[in-house]
Amino acid sequence: MFFLRIVSVTLFIIVASEAKALNKNSNTCSEILGNELIEEIRSYENVKNQILEYVLNGDFKRKTYDELAKFVDKFGARPSGTEVLEKSIDYMIELSREEGLNDIITEDVVVPHWERGEERLTMLEPRIKNIEILGLGRSVSTPPEGITAEVVVFNNFDILEEAAEDLVKGKIVLYDPIFTTYGETVKMRTQGAAKAAAKGAVASLVRSIAPFSINTPHTGSQYYSDDVEKIPTGAISLEDADLIRRMYDRGEKVILNIQMSSTYDTQMSRNTLIDLKGSEDPEKLVIVSGHIDSWDVGQGAMDDGGGLFISWAAPVILKRLNLIPRRTVRAIFWTAEELGLVGAYAYEEAHKDELDKINFIMESDEGTFAPLGLAVGGNEKTRCIVGEVLKLFESINASTLVESDSPGSDIAIFTGNGIPGASLHNDNEKYFWFHHTEGDTMNVEDPDELDLGAAFWTAVAYIIADLSIDIPR
Amino acid sequence: MFFLRIVSVTLFIIVASEAKALNKNSNTCSEILGNELIEEIRSYENVKNQILEYVLNGDFKRKTYDELAKFVDKFGARPSGTEVLEKSIDYMIELSREEGLNDIITEDVVVPHWERGEERLTMLEPRIKNIEILGLGRSVSTPPEGITAEVVVFNNFDILEEAAEDLVKGKIVLYDPIFTTYGETVKMRTQGAAKAAAKGAVASLVRSIAPFSINTPHTGSQYYSDDVEKIPTGAISLEDADLIRRMYDRGEKVILNIQMSSTYDTQMSRNTLIDLKGSEDPEKLVIVSGHIDSWDVGQGAMDDGGGLFISWAAPVILKRLNLIPRRTVRAIFWTAEELGLVGAYAYEEAHKDELDKINFIMESDEGTFAPLGLAVGGNEKTRCIVGEVLKLFESINASTLVESDSPGSDIAIFTGNGIPGASLHNDNEKYFWFHHTEGDTMNVEDPDELDLGAAFWTAVAYIIADLSIDIPR
Repeated sequence: MFFLRIVSVTLFIIVASEAKALNKNSNTCSEILGNELIEEIRSYENVKNQILEYVLNGDFKRKTYDELAKFVDKFGARPSGTEVLEKSIDYMIELSREEGLNDIITEDVVVPHWERGEERLTMLEPRIKNIEILGLGRSVSTPPEGITAEVVVFNNFDILEEAAEDLVKGKIVLYDPIFTTYGETVKMRTQGAAKAAAKGAVASLVRSIAPFSINTPHTGSQYYSDDVEKIPTGAISLEDADLIRRMYDRGEKVILNIQMSSTYDTQMSRNTLIDLKGSEDPEKLVIVSGHIDSWDVGQGAMDDGGGLFISWAAPVILKRLNLIPRRTVRAIFWTAEELGLVGAYAYEEAHKDELDKINFIMESDEGTFAPLGLAVGGNEKTRCIVGEVLKLFESINASTLVESDSPGSDIAIFTGNGIPGASLHNDNEKYFWFHHTEGDTMNVEDPDELDLGAAFWTAVAYIIADLSIDIPR
Repeated sequence: MFFLRIVSVTLFIIVASEAKALNKNSNTCSEILGNELIEEIRSYENVKNQILEYVLNGDFKRKTYDELAKFVDKFGARPSGTEVLEKSIDYMIELSREEGLNDIITEDVVVPHWERGEERLTMLEPRIKNIEILGLGRSVSTPPEGITAEVVVFNNFDILEEAAEDLVKGKIVLYDPIFTTYGETVKMRTQGAAKAAAKGAVASLVRSIAPFSINTPHTGSQYYSDDVEKIPTGAISLEDADLIRRMYDRGEKVILNIQMSSTYDTQMSRNTLIDLKGSEDPEKLVIVSGHIDSWDVGQGAMDDGGGLFISWAAPVILKRLNLIPRRTVRAIFWTAEELGLVGAYAYEEAHKDELDKINFIMESDEGTFAPLGLAVGGNEKTRCIVGEVLKLFESINASTLVESDSPGSDIAIFTGNGIPGASLHNDNEKYFWFHHTEGDTMNVEDPDELDLGAAFWTAVAYIIADLSIDIPR
C-alpha cells in the first residue's frame, strides 16, 4: 500500500482505523431506498450463496491462495520499472486467458524505476555495530566511502524546525516517531529527508513506520523538495532507532557511517484491464482492482498480491459460474502504485472523458485477511445501497460498512473526486507488522481468509454490477 | 536459553509449557508442613511487602530496566570466548561493588569460542534470490566459493532415515519442522547436521525453531557426531523454508549456494559469584542466577540479560534494605551457557564436594516477562514449602507453582540431580519469537514487568534463605 499525499486520504486512514464502524441507520436507509429496491437487493441471496459455496466449498476452494503462491514464488518482488514486473504482467494475462477471459487490454504507462544497490549502515561510536537499513524510494546514493556524521534525534518536525541551525547542520537526522496510526506517522518517512536537508543535515533516517518489529526495517516512498538538496535517506528498525535514542538521551555522541547506492530512471510498464462484458450495459463499469507492482523486499504477497488475486478471481469466478451481470465487471491490475499511484493517475488521464462510465470502483490494498465489509465513499444513497448489499454477508461476518471520504490508495484518486467506490475492510490489525518488509510473504496469507475475500469481492461486484439502478453520484 | 541435551530437561519444557499449573493440594501440604511452619512462612508478609514497595514504588523503581539497558546498550551481544564478554563481566563486578557488595569471586572456566564470519545463502534455481541465513553454533566453514547443491526437504528424522541414499547424497538437506514446542522441534536444529551427514548430505539447513517470524532467522547450538563428516549448517527463516518447501512440493529443482565462514577455538572466561553473607549459616546457599553470555545476534537483553539483572538485583535490594537472611544469598552470573551450559558444569565440578551446601538454587532464563510463579523441582515437602511461600505473592499474580523434574537450563544440572530449585515461571508466550535473533533487544523488555520480576525474585530468595528449616532433599 502506498500512501497518497492528499489530506483526504490521511483523514480516511485515521477514520477507517479508529472510527467506530457504522451501518447506516436502517430507518433512514429504508426511506431512501424504498421497499422495491430493498427487495431487489435481497433477491440476490441465492446468487450470493452460489458464489460463496463455489469458493468456500467447491471447485474454487484454496484456488486464490494456490495461484497467489505460484505467482509470488515464481516472480518474488516486482518493483516498478523492472523486467520482472513486466513478466509478471504477462503471466497474469496468460493466466486470465486460460480461464477464457479474452477481453484484455493493457495500457502503457511511463513509470519510475528506482533500483536499490548496496546499503550499509555502521555505528562507529559509542561502539561498532552493524545496523540494518533499507533505503527509501528515490533516495540518492552516498559517495562510495559513505557519509560519516554525528546523529541528532527528533520525534517530530516541530522540534526539528525550532532547533538551532548548528544543532542540525552537517549531522544525520534520525526521526523516531512512535507508531500511532500510519496516517499520523508516515509523514516522518515521506517528508523527513526534505525537512532535514532544509536545516542543513547531510542524511536522514527514520524509525520504521510500524507498531511491531523483530529488528525489521520497513521501506517506502519519500519525496524530495525541489528547493533543497537531495540527501540520502533510509529506514532502520524500531530496535535500532530506540537504541540510538537511548544513547542520545544519555548524552553519548552517536556517530554513523551510511553507505547507499541506487539508480533512478524511467521505464515503460502497463496497467492491465480484464473485462467480463456486461449483458445489458457493457459500457458501464464496476471495477475491482489491486496493484501488481510491489516494493523490492519480500514477495509482495500481502501488498498487494492478495488484492491482485481476489480482483483477478472476480471475473474468473463469474465466468466459470456463467454469472454475467448487466454491467461490465472490469478487473484492473494497477502498475507502479508504490512509487506514487502512477498507474492509477495514468488511467485517470487516459479515460478522463469517460469517468462517468465508472458505476462503482473497488480496491483491495490494505491486506486480504478475513473480510469484514467495505469502507465506502459516495453519497448517502450510495452508502444505503452498499449497506443493504452488505447485509447479505452476515453469515461470513462481512457486513460492516465504514464511511470514508476517499477510500483506497490507487482508487482514492477517483473516490476522492466523487466517484462512488469502496476499499476492502478486513481484519488487518497486523498489516503494518509486515508492510514494505522482507516479511511480506505467503506466510502472512491464509487460504481460508483468501477464499472468504475472493467470494465476498466477487459477490459484491456481481450484485452492484447487476442492480437495476446505477449507483448514484 | 540453551537447551540441555538430557531427556529430563526435554520433558520439563514440555511439562512446564503444556501441563496445567498446579498448586499442591492444600490439605496434604498443611499436614506435611504443620501449622507452625505455615505460620512462620506467613509471617514474612511484612518483609515481602517492604521489598515489593521498594521496587515497585520506591527508590528501586525502573532501576532493573535502566541498568539492563545501560549494560546491553554498552556491550551489545556477549558471545562465549570474546573480549566483550569479559569486559561485561568486569562491568557487573564493578556495578556490584558500587552497591557495597564486596564478597565477589570469579572462577575461571575454559569456554568454546565460535566466531561467525561472512555468511551468504543464494537461491540459484528456480530463480535468483538472497536468503537470510544464520549459521548454527560450531558450524564449520564452506570453501570460499561456497557449496552449490540441490535441496531435499524433510520434516522429520524418520523420513530422512528411510530415504534412499541417492536422494540425499551430495544434496543440501533442509529440515522444515512446524514449531509445536521448543522441546519437540529443537532436535532438528541440534542434531540435523549430524543426521544429514550420515546420509551423505553436503550441508544442512533448518527452518528456524520459532512459532512466528518477520523473515527472522534464529541461531542456536548444534552438535556434530564424531563418526560422520562435519558439514556446514545454518538456520533460515520460516518464510524462506516454506518457500523452498512449496517449490520442492511442486517438483521444482531448488539449487542453493551456501557460503559460510567461522573460527573455533577455546578461551578463558569466568563465572561470577556475588555473596550477601548469611547472618547465621553463611556457608548455606540460596542461589539466584542467570547467564551473562549471549548469542552473537541482538543484544542478549531477553536471553538472558533480564535473568542476569533480576539475579543481580536480589543481593543489591537486600543490601540496600539491610535485610540479611540467615543463609547466604549468592547471585551467580553463569558464563558460556549458550554453547552448552559450560559455566554451570564448571561450577558443579569446582564445588562438587560442597553441593550439599546448596539449600535452594534458582534461575531465570526463560524471559523476564510478568512473573507468574515458579517451576519447582524437589520432593513433596519442598514443593509444599515453596507453594506456601508463593501464596504470599497473590497480590502480584505470581502464586503459580509448576511441578518440574529438573527446572532451568544451567541449573538443570543441579535440579536434575536432586538439588531443590526453581526456574522463574513467567508470561513468556512470545519468548520464542525473539530467541536467538537480532530481535533480542531492549524492545522485548518492559520496565514494570522487570520491576515485578526483581521484587518477586528478591523476596522469594530472602524468605527461603531466612526460614528456620533447610529446604529438604
